[in-house]
Amino acid sequence: MTSVIKTLELDLGDRSYPIHIGQGLLQDASLLTPHIHGGSTVVVSNETVAPLYINKLHDLIGDYRNIDVILPDGEEYKTLDTVNQIFTQMLEQHCDRKTTVLALGGGVIGDITGYGAASYQRGVNFIQVPTTLLSMVDSSVGGKTGVNHPLGKNMIGAFYQPQCVIIDTDTLNTLDDRQLSAGMAEVIKYGLIRDADFLDWLQENMDGLLKRDPELLTEAIYRSCKHKAEVVADDEKEAGQRALLNLGHTFGHAIETGMGYGKWLHGEAVAAGMVMAAKLSQGMGWLEATDVQRIETLLQAANLPIAPPKDMTVKQFMDLMSVDKKVLDGVLRLVLMKSMGEAIVTDDFDHDALLKVLIG
Amino acid sequence: MTSVIKTLELDLGDRSYPIHIGQGLLQDASLLTPHIHGGSTVVVSNETVAPLYINKLHDLIGDYRNIDVILPDGEEYKTLDTVNQIFTQMLEQHCDRKTTVLALGGGVIGDITGYGAASYQRGVNFIQVPTTLLSMVDSSVGGKTGVNHPLGKNMIGAFYQPQCVIIDTDTLNTLDDRQLSAGMAEVIKYGLIRDADFLDWLQENMDGLLKRDPELLTEAIYRSCKHKAEVVADDEKEAGQRALLNLGHTFGHAIETGMGYGKWLHGEAVAAGMVMAAKLSQGMGWLEATDVQRIETLLQAANLPIAPPKDMTVKQFMDLMSVDKKVLDGVLRLVLMKSMGEAIVTDDFDHDALLKVLIG
Repeated sequence: MTSVIKTLELDLGDRSYPIHIGQGLLQDASLLTPHIHGGSTVVVSNETVAPLYINKLHDLIGDYRNIDVILPDGEEYKTLDTVNQIFTQMLEQHCDRKTTVLALGGGVIGDITGYGAASYQRGVNFIQVPTTLLSMVDSSVGGKTGVNHPLGKNMIGAFYQPQCVIIDTDTLNTLDDRQLSAGMAEVIKYGLIRDADFLDWLQENMDGLLKRDPELLTEAIYRSCKHKAEVVADDEKEAGQRALLNLGHTFGHAIETGMGYGKWLHGEAVAAGMVMAAKLSQGMGWLEATDVQRIETLLQAANLPIAPPKDMTVKQFMDLMSVDKKVLDGVLRLVLMKSMGEAIVTDDFDHDALLKVLIG
Repeated sequence: MTSVIKTLELDLGDRSYPIHIGQGLLQDASLLTPHIHGGSTVVVSNETVAPLYINKLHDLIGDYRNIDVILPDGEEYKTLDTVNQIFTQMLEQHCDRKTTVLALGGGVIGDITGYGAASYQRGVNFIQVPTTLLSMVDSSVGGKTGVNHPLGKNMIGAFYQPQCVIIDTDTLNTLDDRQLSAGMAEVIKYGLIRDADFLDWLQENMDGLLKRDPELLTEAIYRSCKHKAEVVADDEKEAGQRALLNLGHTFGHAIETGMGYGKWLHGEAVAAGMVMAAKLSQGMGWLEATDVQRIETLLQAANLPIAPPKDMTVKQFMDLMSVDKKVLDGVLRLVLMKSMGEAIVTDDFDHDALLKVLIG
């Protein structure tokens, strides 16, 4: 394998870590082994991903004593009970504090496994091996881990950084088209909030990206992770600027919840939510109509929706948005766009303009 | 209330926090309020402690919206299920990320509550208000939080530091004598591992301490917390020196497990364990027979056992000690004493000498 490997570093002092991106990285043990410090490894994956890639990971792990924990596939298993199952298997196998835990899968597997690694004996080594575009550019980088509670998504968790992230673009070859597009929504988001040039690049290369050209994917993932890494390095615990990463997410969460989880994919809901945020930004006089149009064109090129579902009512949106986690002290804060490639978090927006966006 | 307040700081950079110690501190709102940042507080306590002190804490909290979570009393409730009950109550009451969670009780309450605070929405503010001597001088300081798993004690948890620790010596007036003595074992431990002068002071003042003289208690707790804070500041995650705090604990855990949890109190088992560690240190030629005798005399003055239960066999000890969490890579490491007031962690001890200690 002679293709390009791109590596970047998330700078968090003594908790800094590398993010490796490229084609065929699951055949390169040299990236993984420096981060395995103890005698045992635990690979956590699910019933869909494990049959495809777990043997490659076993080959990389080599001589270490390894335990596999294979979970059922689906967001409904992202619970404290599932984390406890991981603990039980690790304790039954006498895994000690020097164990290294690897998450092989999408965002659900990464979130569950990260929280498990954070909590097992108060924290063991953890490596992210994301296999979906969404988890590659979003959840695998930055240390947000956790599970759902019946009363709220991602309500239980930890900020816990991995030792490294290994992103093999080849794993995207088994991802279905709809999931690939959903991941692309978060890629486009980085352009919208931080990088107008990246928007141009994405518009030019969207065809090749959707055809899974490995070099284009490596570049898009690299630029996305670089933005994420910079934001997280400045604001690990989301005291401020990290919230910019939530562009479109407050509207999007309302859509996901309103439609019932699973009906709209997260990335699809975020895509529609980003258009709503852009329209509100236009209502504030910050974006031109042509800007909003460009955003819609790019999202459509990625086969993403640009409007919320017809049957969501204004009242549904208002109810669901006021319980979003981004609400502090009862005030609704939204991420809006000041210009193409520049976002802000604000509670100082025009409520009539918001209403107009919700009416559609 | 004009008595002395002693305050020390645990130095962990931007996560540093004060530890306030003195008589009547639960009547002094000025210590608490600077650390409550949000609109809501949650007091977690148990059915034994809450009736005694929760009203005092409510008075200190004042106008904030407060929720009480009252758990049953006992180590058997130190589980992931109990933590999940705290999450449920907090979510039902729409507690946001700015909530401050207060632990009012002994070590079990502090450990459960700390892990809950660490995990709720990936971490909210947390304040320790310990009400037993053991939790005042040990678990409330240093950020070790967690719960038990059916397959092991303290196997699930987080390193999560509080915003402050408030120690009111008056709360010790309702602690029974046996629990007070058990806490004294950890106080004596600090003398043994770090402070020979403190051993002299304790020998002189043990009568007054057991009579709960508030000024003597303040001094003993202050010196204990100071030692703990110094050790933790140097080695928060127990990569090295923090393990010295486990003097007597490997033997002690074997006693607790061997006898069945609850039969011997933790402090009682640690007391016997410290004598065993001292005898092994004597076997290594590091302590004199007179040193061991001094240790026994001091522990006896505190009404603590100085030998393991007669019915524990050597085989039981060996089996139980090799599964202790302090075992890394299958090698038994013990905390031993190089001299009075000086301890080391070592796997380089004479196995015949260990056997002799276990035979008794």
